[in-house]
Amino acid sequence: MPFITFEGMEGSGKTTQARRLASVLPGFYGRNVVLTKEPGARTAVGRGVREVLLAPRDTILYPDAEFFLFLADRAQHVREIVQPALRRGDWVVSDRYVGSTFAYQLIARGMSDRAVRMQAIKLATGGLMPDLQIVILIDPEEGMRRAIARGGKLDRLEQEELAFHHRVHEGFREWITCSPNCTVIVDDGMKSVEEIHHEILARVHHKFSAQYAT
Amino acid sequence: MPFITFEGMEGSGKTTQARRLASVLPGFYGRNVVLTKEPGARTAVGRGVREVLLAPRDTILYPDAEFFLFLADRAQHVREIVQPALRRGDWVVSDRYVGSTFAYQLIARGMSDRAVRMQAIKLATGGLMPDLQIVILIDPEEGMRRAIARGGKLDRLEQEELAFHHRVHEGFREWITCSPNCTVIVDDGMKSVEEIHHEILARVHHKFSAQYAT
Repeated sequence: MPFITFEGMEGSGKTTQARRLASVLPGFYGRNVVLTKEPGARTAVGRGVREVLLAPRDTILYPDAEFFLFLADRAQHVREIVQPALRRGDWVVSDRYVGSTFAYQLIARGMSDRAVRMQAIKLATGGLMPDLQIVILIDPEEGMRRAIARGGKLDRLEQEELAFHHRVHEGFREWITCSPNCTVIVDDGMKSVEEIHHEILARVHHKFSAQYAT
Repeated sequence: MPFITFEGMEGSGKTTQARRLASVLPGFYGRNVVLTKEPGARTAVGRGVREVLLAPRDTILYPDAEFFLFLADRAQHVREIVQPALRRGDWVVSDRYVGSTFAYQLIARGMSDRAVRMQAIKLATGGLMPDLQIVILIDPEEGMRRAIARGGKLDRLEQEELAFHHRVHEGFREWITCSPNCTVIVDDGMKSVEEIHHEILARVHHKFSAQYAT
């Protein structure tokens, strides 16, 4: 069954769009859809890891610790949630997956030893790559404006300086060029949530309707 | 400054011996000694990870999640505790380090892709390997008898079946052959804590007295 991931920076609208997509897919394809997310999706392990990862803190969380925490969370998420869902015939939509590790950790944190890290990322996924990755690109300053405007306390990653978010943006652009099954949605700030939803839905139908339409 | 690690299975007495060693070293070498441990040493991140790792649970903690959690904990531990201590001129004694990941995860869990995993382990350490690894070997059944006899609730790893602990034992034996700076202490069940302490102290003096004696 299809495994669809959403990737993008804070304020890109990917969480909203993942929910919208997940809510309409059963009507089109007649299958249950599991909507999930990283880090910390619905697993006891994930909740513990998410707390360590995102809590604003006084002490530094070192980049290597952060990197391996995301991998631990993914390893559990894939095996406890995603693979069982796909095996029982559900579709799975995940808000973030490997592209976010690439953009935030490898690129934005400027990590060394990328080749080894990519192999470690692959081990964590158990070899499960998405059938479709929906990457939403937005101007980083606009993204942060939206993330702040929606209120609530910013988490540890959202609190990073603007230069970091620019590097995340570049990371996603690079991810698109080096990863299979990416489809890119550019939010130029002029489109409504509804328009973007229909753009995404069109890409999904294009990819899956021949094989999966009821 | 020297970085000394203790490795061994449950009930091997390594925690007791690490404490004993750490308590007498300042008298011999005139330096402060930081006694630490993995997982979960004195860091906020470590406490969170330790809780996820060792809590007895109903849901499975998948081997890959466990593996990357140990690496995340080590990455933070090395950078927050060990490296700063060594830089300010302290000695560091750690109860568990890379040898335990090798024995418990790679060998006892029968993990695939060992070469990639060894590279990932190296990334997590930031390249910091021990100057001396004190590996205490004990018969696995005797070790578990002692672990149970000391009372208290067994953690998730201690609860594993005896066959697992036999594989851990084999893992440590293999680690000795493939890792530098190992010194092996065999506890045949006939030696007192005091005798083993003096055996360990002799190995430490042999290794470090020429360079570090006051």
